[in-house]
Amino acid sequence: MNRRSSSNSALRQPTRTGSYTPSIRSLTRRVSTLSSAERGHDEAATSADHAINEEIEEIKRYEDFTTIDWVQDAAREQLRRKARRQEKAGFFEREGGIGLRRKLWESYDAGQAWIVVTLVGSAIGLNAAFLNIVTEWLSDIKLGHCTTAFYLNENFCCWGAENGCPEWKRWSGFWLWNYILYILFATIFAFTSARLVKSFAPYAAGSGISEIKCIIAGFVMKGFLSAMTLLIKSIGLPLAIASGLSVGKEGPSVHYAVCTGNVISRFFDKFRRNAAKTREILSASAAAGVAVAFGSPIGGVLFSLEEMSNYFPLKTMWRSYFCALVATAVLAAMNPFRTGQLVMFQVKYDRSWHFFEILFYLIIGVFGGLYGAFVIKWNLRAQAFRKKYLKSYPILEATLLAVITAIICYPNMFLRIDMTESMEILFLECEGGHDYDELCDRKNRWRMIFSLAIATIIRTLLVIISYGCKVPAGIFVPSMAIGASFGRMVGIFVQHLHESFPSSAFFAACQPDVPCITPGTYAFLGAAAALSGIMHITVSVVVIMFELTGALTYILPTMIVVGVTKAVSERFGKGGIADRAIWFNGFPFLDNKEEHTFGVPVSQVMTSNAVVLPATGLELRDVERIMAENKYQGYPIVEDPGSKILLGYIGRTELRYAVDKAKRDQLAPAHAKCYFTPSPSRPPITPASSMPAVTFDTIAATSAQMCLDLSRFIDPTPLSVHPRLPLETVMELFKKMGPRVILIEYRGRLTGLVTVKDCLKYQFKVEAQENPRDEHALDEGQERIWNVMKQIAFWFDGKLNDLRSKLRIGRRQGIELASPISQGSSLERNRYNSDNGPSVELENRGEHESTRG
Amino acid sequence: MNRRSSSNSALRQPTRTGSYTPSIRSLTRRVSTLSSAERGHDEAATSADHAINEEIEEIKRYEDFTTIDWVQDAAREQLRRKARRQEKAGFFEREGGIGLRRKLWESYDAGQAWIVVTLVGSAIGLNAAFLNIVTEWLSDIKLGHCTTAFYLNENFCCWGAENGCPEWKRWSGFWLWNYILYILFATIFAFTSARLVKSFAPYAAGSGISEIKCIIAGFVMKGFLSAMTLLIKSIGLPLAIASGLSVGKEGPSVHYAVCTGNVISRFFDKFRRNAAKTREILSASAAAGVAVAFGSPIGGVLFSLEEMSNYFPLKTMWRSYFCALVATAVLAAMNPFRTGQLVMFQVKYDRSWHFFEILFYLIIGVFGGLYGAFVIKWNLRAQAFRKKYLKSYPILEATLLAVITAIICYPNMFLRIDMTESMEILFLECEGGHDYDELCDRKNRWRMIFSLAIATIIRTLLVIISYGCKVPAGIFVPSMAIGASFGRMVGIFVQHLHESFPSSAFFAACQPDVPCITPGTYAFLGAAAALSGIMHITVSVVVIMFELTGALTYILPTMIVVGVTKAVSERFGKGGIADRAIWFNGFPFLDNKEEHTFGVPVSQVMTSNAVVLPATGLELRDVERIMAENKYQGYPIVEDPGSKILLGYIGRTELRYAVDKAKRDQLAPAHAKCYFTPSPSRPPITPASSMPAVTFDTIAATSAQMCLDLSRFIDPTPLSVHPRLPLETVMELFKKMGPRVILIEYRGRLTGLVTVKDCLKYQFKVEAQENPRDEHALDEGQERIWNVMKQIAFWFDGKLNDLRSKLRIGRRQGIELASPISQGSSLERNRYNSDNGPSVELENRGEHESTRG
Repeated sequence: MNRRSSSNSALRQPTRTGSYTPSIRSLTRRVSTLSSAERGHDEAATSADHAINEEIEEIKRYEDFTTIDWVQDAAREQLRRKARRQEKAGFFEREGGIGLRRKLWESYDAGQAWIVVTLVGSAIGLNAAFLNIVTEWLSDIKLGHCTTAFYLNENFCCWGAENGCPEWKRWSGFWLWNYILYILFATIFAFTSARLVKSFAPYAAGSGISEIKCIIAGFVMKGFLSAMTLLIKSIGLPLAIASGLSVGKEGPSVHYAVCTGNVISRFFDKFRRNAAKTREILSASAAAGVAVAFGSPIGGVLFSLEEMSNYFPLKTMWRSYFCALVATAVLAAMNPFRTGQLVMFQVKYDRSWHFFEILFYLIIGVFGGLYGAFVIKWNLRAQAFRKKYLKSYPILEATLLAVITAIICYPNMFLRIDMTESMEILFLECEGGHDYDELCDRKNRWRMIFSLAIATIIRTLLVIISYGCKVPAGIFVPSMAIGASFGRMVGIFVQHLHESFPSSAFFAACQPDVPCITPGTYAFLGAAAALSGIMHITVSVVVIMFELTGALTYILPTMIVVGVTKAVSERFGKGGIADRAIWFNGFPFLDNKEEHTFGVPVSQVMTSNAVVLPATGLELRDVERIMAENKYQGYPIVEDPGSKILLGYIGRTELRYAVDKAKRDQLAPAHAKCYFTPSPSRPPITPASSMPAVTFDTIAATSAQMCLDLSRFIDPTPLSVHPRLPLETVMELFKKMGPRVILIEYRGRLTGLVTVKDCLKYQFKVEAQENPRDEHALDEGQERIWNVMKQIAFWFDGKLNDLRSKLRIGRRQGIELASPISQGSSLERNRYNSDNGPSVELENRGEHESTRG
Repeated sequence: MNRRSSSNSALRQPTRTGSYTPSIRSLTRRVSTLSSAERGHDEAATSADHAINEEIEEIKRYEDFTTIDWVQDAAREQLRRKARRQEKAGFFEREGGIGLRRKLWESYDAGQAWIVVTLVGSAIGLNAAFLNIVTEWLSDIKLGHCTTAFYLNENFCCWGAENGCPEWKRWSGFWLWNYILYILFATIFAFTSARLVKSFAPYAAGSGISEIKCIIAGFVMKGFLSAMTLLIKSIGLPLAIASGLSVGKEGPSVHYAVCTGNVISRFFDKFRRNAAKTREILSASAAAGVAVAFGSPIGGVLFSLEEMSNYFPLKTMWRSYFCALVATAVLAAMNPFRTGQLVMFQVKYDRSWHFFEILFYLIIGVFGGLYGAFVIKWNLRAQAFRKKYLKSYPILEATLLAVITAIICYPNMFLRIDMTESMEILFLECEGGHDYDELCDRKNRWRMIFSLAIATIIRTLLVIISYGCKVPAGIFVPSMAIGASFGRMVGIFVQHLHESFPSSAFFAACQPDVPCITPGTYAFLGAAAALSGIMHITVSVVVIMFELTGALTYILPTMIVVGVTKAVSERFGKGGIADRAIWFNGFPFLDNKEEHTFGVPVSQVMTSNAVVLPATGLELRDVERIMAENKYQGYPIVEDPGSKILLGYIGRTELRYAVDKAKRDQLAPAHAKCYFTPSPSRPPITPASSMPAVTFDTIAATSAQMCLDLSRFIDPTPLSVHPRLPLETVMELFKKMGPRVILIEYRGRLTGLVTVKDCLKYQFKVEAQENPRDEHALDEGQERIWNVMKQIAFWFDGKLNDLRSKLRIGRRQGIELASPISQGSSLERNRYNSDNGPSVELENRGEHESTRG
């Protein structure tokens, strides 16, 4: 829209001159000198350009739940740079030669991105260190306390000692009391976390990965990356994890990292203006988030590349690399675990693997794929249930989940402790290290296998119902913990096999009288498989696993396992949990990974009856009426509605801004004519500040034939394609170039327009036709579950009311601790029914309101 | 071109009907029934489509040194898939239900890519194992031989023993005789390698990485990936490396891997047809090539991603992952080094690093960046010199280089041995391991520093002149070896500092009485820095270094060093050596990494006087005349040359095919009218096999008004843009969508067209304006060097002739060994002056012959 001085603007003049009204034509000669001067004198034009440009930036460009037009964004940035360069050249020439000031200015300008990335990385590193310390303390406080200083966790309290010390005391010697306190703490933590999220930042719930994917792809969600979300996520996350819910910190840590990136970059001019640059910072932050969560800088970069970004130029990779490096270095310097190293659970597997073990690796790989497919399927169903019935009880839900989890998990030795800790134990070799609860003891084999099987199953079920509840919650670590327990189970079984048949041909590769099987490596591989199965990522998983453990000799087994998992997942699933959540929530996101064969031209998908604006002849009130009548995100500009010769495109936001500004600054009357094409033949009543303002007298005098030049707000070169272009090519254009809308032009005439949502709708329609599903049985099942839950709730409510009236005379303190639950159950319902604030889910797919191009 | 039955073909009818000649109009009604039937009966149309489709595939689509049109390629694949699906459905319905056969067929079809990738991976792994064994043997034979069995290298000969054994004997006890034999062997190896390359596969010379980058981006170079190139590269590479030239095997191993991928995929139908699928296989092969060269599967995938592919969808990543996995697994199973592991030089650094060491890491990082910039700059100059003066003496050049290298390197302890071996030694910790030549001895400090400095400098100079000579030659390992010697030098220096001032505040972090500095880690970091500096890659270097050594505790230092190197390289250089080589050779390749601000619309760059073909009215001889008159790669089709209403685009190859076929099969006369738009109004004399053939009688009878329908060969929906679209956006379109040509359309009229070469030309013009350079001094310097070289050559020639006549009476055997050199010097000149066969360099940039779209 701001390229009017471009060299071949002459191209359009001859065809249009005839269409002006005679009254205006008289003005043509008067301003022709101005216009020719403008065309000839390039610099003046550019500075005018620049002024316009700055003005455009003031427009609050992207409204909530719309998509960013990357093509326009890039074009605007190019113009801005050019203008700045020229302006700078002029400025410094006046200052006299290339001086120090210019150099300093240029260095600052060039280095701004690096400053931002450094700041973001440091902030993320600091935050991660803080989170690690708080989480550890909160997790330990559930089990006991440090007598020397209450703020120390078990590790620091017993510094140097292994397996506990006298300073660290369990709450009580009596197991039941410990059990109750454990449940109590879990409840408080979960309640606080959910309460905070609900009250201050609803967007802080969940993992946020799928939303961030959409945001990086260009979807605007106001507030999702705000400072408040950052704060609440940082506070709520340790609480949620310490509550013992089967949730991890890795997904949320991506979210808080991206929030940090967004919040910090807002302070810098360059990023406020340019969405593409901000996208780079966000990608880099996501990398840093994973990097600090796992202590895996390269893994973070690869995760950001493989999972987060649908378009990842190498420049972004380099930014991500740097950001992850800074964040990890800060975390390492803070050294929150006092182990002096990044490697989270360092393991040293002395023995190498044998080729016969590949058979068991295959089993683990298949498990990973099946686990992923199973959890994704049922978690989506749980989400649907949650959305339908539990939307109004987010706090109660999270609290109850924490209670149930605590009750169930305490008895199992692997479920009771923190998931990270349990993984650490499962990864260990039996020789040399300390032995957790006789895990390695030969006589415990079958007991351990049983216990691990129970842990695997229970944790899987808990993950399905917990992931997606309204506290900060990730699914990485729970998945890995599940994989590790399954893997260790297989490992112990193989070890048992080997010890039972040491001389069989199958185990011929084993050396006699030396341990041959290392169950810890199976746990390690299981964790990799489950992580890959749930997220559908490969390379990043392998790298993350190495950076986590340093077990480089196991690179081939890890790659084999992850490869098998990937193959199985592709067979049974349709993308990782993040992609499925995007699909479930109906975000306008074209998945790069999918490939379609529709075999139809784009004309079958396009909207052919788009609302268009004629370039001339519309009055201001007409424009306002058109904008009020529909919610379209923009309007093609045509020469006249009959011929539909395409001239350009104007976004709703720009149009709104232009109209408002014209009414405010120029006091344009409702019957002012609007012109959308640049032409020197109209009086200079424009919103541009570079032109002399019109006095009130002039307006009064010429108001009858007054014109409003809106040409600088239009995009004169929107992407347009032939109606017979295959739909797949158009989708590629959307994915790779990222326009908000593509116009369909046939021989210069507009025949329609197409947006990402049109493509998605068609895709869903085709998918639905290919796999017709009967949702009826499912709905009925959900209804039944809901009824059971309601009955239980009523029964509990009654009981609790009885209990409360009894207890009112009793101990005061006890109630205060327990009150959140009872409050929750009786009050929640009334409170939250009336309060349908913004929630993360937008609409179900297929039911979008039309926010078309 | 084959979408004629698409649903809105109706769109174009109304506007065109008027333009037919009256004689044809009478036919319209006659065939209108056929046409409406075609439009209504979709399936018939599709099978016709399919037939056309198959026909198009027969066309040898891509000529040498042209670029692939990815948009058309994708569109064609979509159509093919759709057609195949329908055909299959029909076929299996006739067969009765969804049976086993259908399932088998489908599985095979879906799994074809995996079969290919597995085969390719295995082949690459086997080849790598073979190369490793041969290279080791050839390298060792230069120094001595195994008395028990001549085919064993030192390691196998002395299996189990350290530091040599009596079975392995040096050639002689006298050092001079050893020295001469060393030089002799080097000479023979280099001569053989260069001779093979010259005679059988000129494309096998060099590293091939830059060419493969272009090929993956869509540039066609016939023969570059042929079976012959593969064979010669596989034989020539061990010889070149064993000759002691400062060249590595990693670049070439990418080349032979990609050749393998190409050769194997040619056997499969799917890949012969589809360029995009082949590209996937080539990317995957490149990953496997790096994977086996370094024993680093993940590093290979990342290298392929970061360096080789300008467009890397996730699907390709997954293919690459799998291919690298298979290749590495095969290599591991072959176990060529008998060490049972992939990790090439396993090092275990017991001590962690200290924060004060970062200062020295920075020095190493800066060195890496400067090294890269220096080598790239001077190597390009050496290449220019080579191209200008040495083009005719490739064998002599390589042989002489080997001789010089052998003479210079033998005296230095680090230069004498194989580069890989020297790196292994330099990486080692001083404690525990065996000590090579008292490297760790305290009293040798200064001698070692000196020796390493010499090694660094000499190797750098040798790399500059050796890389690019006409044997298979990479630059990875030489760079790493240089970096390692520099790093070790710094490390020894720091160690010396620490030992001199153990109590200074700077070394406060060191524990007393324990070694604090590990010089081996500096060597490791130096290798990473130099590799990153020469290739301008970051993430892959870090991953490759870990997979090479397993030194995971050093991840942060490595990242810091590589980060500094990258920053320095970006300041001083304009891209890695592969990118610069592309620039130097003038390949039509748009670099993804570069970002430009031209601020001009595409109309400034486009060719506005493109040769167009009118849709109607051209006679066959006109078409042939137009094709003979110019070399354009294709022609836009317009309604008529006056209005220039754009109708489509036809590639030169398709047009050639269509015309030839028409003349051959239909005996079309020279005055037959050609029609490029689909229309039911012309007699059915078309090259399509689905239509009934015309008898000779008909031709004779109707030859006066005979028409040739070429509409199925045109692309009716070429990408077209507005003339005022910014050039940057157009370049993005080229990079991301990959069309061969973009048409410039204004209001339905063609105003010009633009190709990648137009963009590159403009870019070079702008660059040349910004940095004007005087090449005169450089040319003069080169001329002077050439004169000196010529004088030396003549002097030697005379001497050798004298010597030969004297020796003729002397020992026979000695001459036979030495003869290649003398032959080379006297005959080479005559032989190769006359023989200017295909060489890897195409043309200098800026002097391309016009192969415009």
